[in-house]
Amino acid sequence: MGVHSMWEDYPELAKDLSSVIELIDSQIHVRDKTIETIVKNFLHSGGKLLRPAYSLLCSQIGPEQDKERAIAIAAAIECIHMATLIHDDVIDEAETRHGNPTIHSQKGNKYAVYSGDYLFCLTFNLLSKYAQSLSQLEFNVKGMEKILTGELEQLNSQYVEPVSVKDYLSRIAGKTAQLFAVSCYSGAVTSKAAKRATMQAWNLGHYIGMAFQIIDDILDYQSDDQTLGKPVMNDFRQGIYTLPLIYAMKENRQAFIPFIAKKDQLTDNDISAISDLIKQYQGIEKAYDLAGKYTNKALKELEKLPDGEYKNILYDITASLLKRNM
Amino acid sequence: MGVHSMWEDYPELAKDLSSVIELIDSQIHVRDKTIETIVKNFLHSGGKLLRPAYSLLCSQIGPEQDKERAIAIAAAIECIHMATLIHDDVIDEAETRHGNPTIHSQKGNKYAVYSGDYLFCLTFNLLSKYAQSLSQLEFNVKGMEKILTGELEQLNSQYVEPVSVKDYLSRIAGKTAQLFAVSCYSGAVTSKAAKRATMQAWNLGHYIGMAFQIIDDILDYQSDDQTLGKPVMNDFRQGIYTLPLIYAMKENRQAFIPFIAKKDQLTDNDISAISDLIKQYQGIEKAYDLAGKYTNKALKELEKLPDGEYKNILYDITASLLKRNM
Repeated sequence: MGVHSMWEDYPELAKDLSSVIELIDSQIHVRDKTIETIVKNFLHSGGKLLRPAYSLLCSQIGPEQDKERAIAIAAAIECIHMATLIHDDVIDEAETRHGNPTIHSQKGNKYAVYSGDYLFCLTFNLLSKYAQSLSQLEFNVKGMEKILTGELEQLNSQYVEPVSVKDYLSRIAGKTAQLFAVSCYSGAVTSKAAKRATMQAWNLGHYIGMAFQIIDDILDYQSDDQTLGKPVMNDFRQGIYTLPLIYAMKENRQAFIPFIAKKDQLTDNDISAISDLIKQYQGIEKAYDLAGKYTNKALKELEKLPDGEYKNILYDITASLLKRNM
Repeated sequence: MGVHSMWEDYPELAKDLSSVIELIDSQIHVRDKTIETIVKNFLHSGGKLLRPAYSLLCSQIGPEQDKERAIAIAAAIECIHMATLIHDDVIDEAETRHGNPTIHSQKGNKYAVYSGDYLFCLTFNLLSKYAQSLSQLEFNVKGMEKILTGELEQLNSQYVEPVSVKDYLSRIAGKTAQLFAVSCYSGAVTSKAAKRATMQAWNLGHYIGMAFQIIDDILDYQSDDQTLGKPVMNDFRQGIYTLPLIYAMKENRQAFIPFIAKKDQLTDNDISAISDLIKQYQGIEKAYDLAGKYTNKALKELEKLPDGEYKNILYDITASLLKRNM
């Protein structure tokens, strides 16, 4: 099974990622073939597999290589990621993901809720089979809880005036950075890495996740070729206020208040006006600066890890996150 | 915290069930207080706690009593039960549960999907903290998977002409009996019961669950005081065809086909007509007979277990399941 083209320069990693997908595929057994097809199609819909990739790379930190376990842990991580994506699409009423119609838009909430639940079960099934100890599992489960509560916070702050950079960072720490941290940490644990190195892997994942989410949020404010240069701004339309806006509002809060008050009634002219205001107050530049700081923190954690080919790959992909041509 | 009045004759069990609720309550921490309140209200909305009760009683089968662990396992079981109920209510678009408005009807799908997910996390969190071994956990997780796939099958057979008693039994085995079996089995494991006794506990739970669900399905065809003697028949209205209908259709399939073809367009006259037909062909009596057979199988498994006060209570509540005045 082919994986995303971003991995083609790293053939061994690409092969392992392909094994991750195959393992998940082999675990999906639902008597109802409609559901089985939905879940399998979602699995093969071309996600980037960033989290399992980080987990696999970090599974080379320690002295022991247990490929089977490393692949299973990476598979568990991708399963929980897919489960949260499917449930998020129900919640956001999103129509497409990766350019494909979402499960809930195709088949209704019923199938989406259960497909996500099924993937949650697969996650814990894989973890309970392949985790080395109950305490490793507990650590993983605590991670999942934070991911969920991060989402909950986002949900409840919809259309609420954004408060501070600090609140934003705490939200994305739960929503995104937590799973990247769990990915790197769990990978390191499979290789019996020293305690110190597993914590460095955790930090590495956390900083990568922070940078990744900030850049993801920036991209939403930037033009998209398909829309002839118009910014997408789906997040703003849905009342999810991210870092570029928060920085711009620090310069001129009043300018944005009327748009926030309009909630989901924004016109295309409003969107253009907001986009111009954010440019005027350097919201995007400042957000990029912060993403750069997190990327540098990640690279600094990375330097501390034992040398090896995996480290060069981690360096490459982490540095290229800032460019996000991937 | 008071528990359901059905337990008032068993003060020690009632106390332990109250500890189960307190433990779950103490684990619910969501920064967003709206969600926290939703989940806590649901917890305290007066469910019968049958599954944790069976689990606690079976935790007295073996030679060792580990109350803390037994309560935690019972709590995990109640959490997964609550999670599936909340997600089922999203799927069924149910308006009320236990006479209270459902979460999705009060707050929308968003909150219901996440509240259920949050409870899934609590389940696995409790299991990973209190399970004795990873293999016990795997067993539990496999159980959850079956519960889900049981629901999925029900979902996909909506408004589809029911096929056979065998298919019905296989559906309720997954949907209901599995969690009762996991409850009894996991309880027994906490007491370090012998392998043989834990398997007897599993069978006991399975038979109880089968009887419980058949009777639950019968109740849907029976009159409800509040509706002045009219049968509720919510299941039939929603295209979920259960045992009384399946038995009646074996006698006269043609009589029911036009009603099934009407799907969700049934009038009140249709409902009365179906109810009369089911009476005419003894659908309810036959279903009761089968529930009685499962109850007897459960009581026979129970006899094999070591003597003790817990066994008398198990006998009482299992025998009274058939009457279902509880």
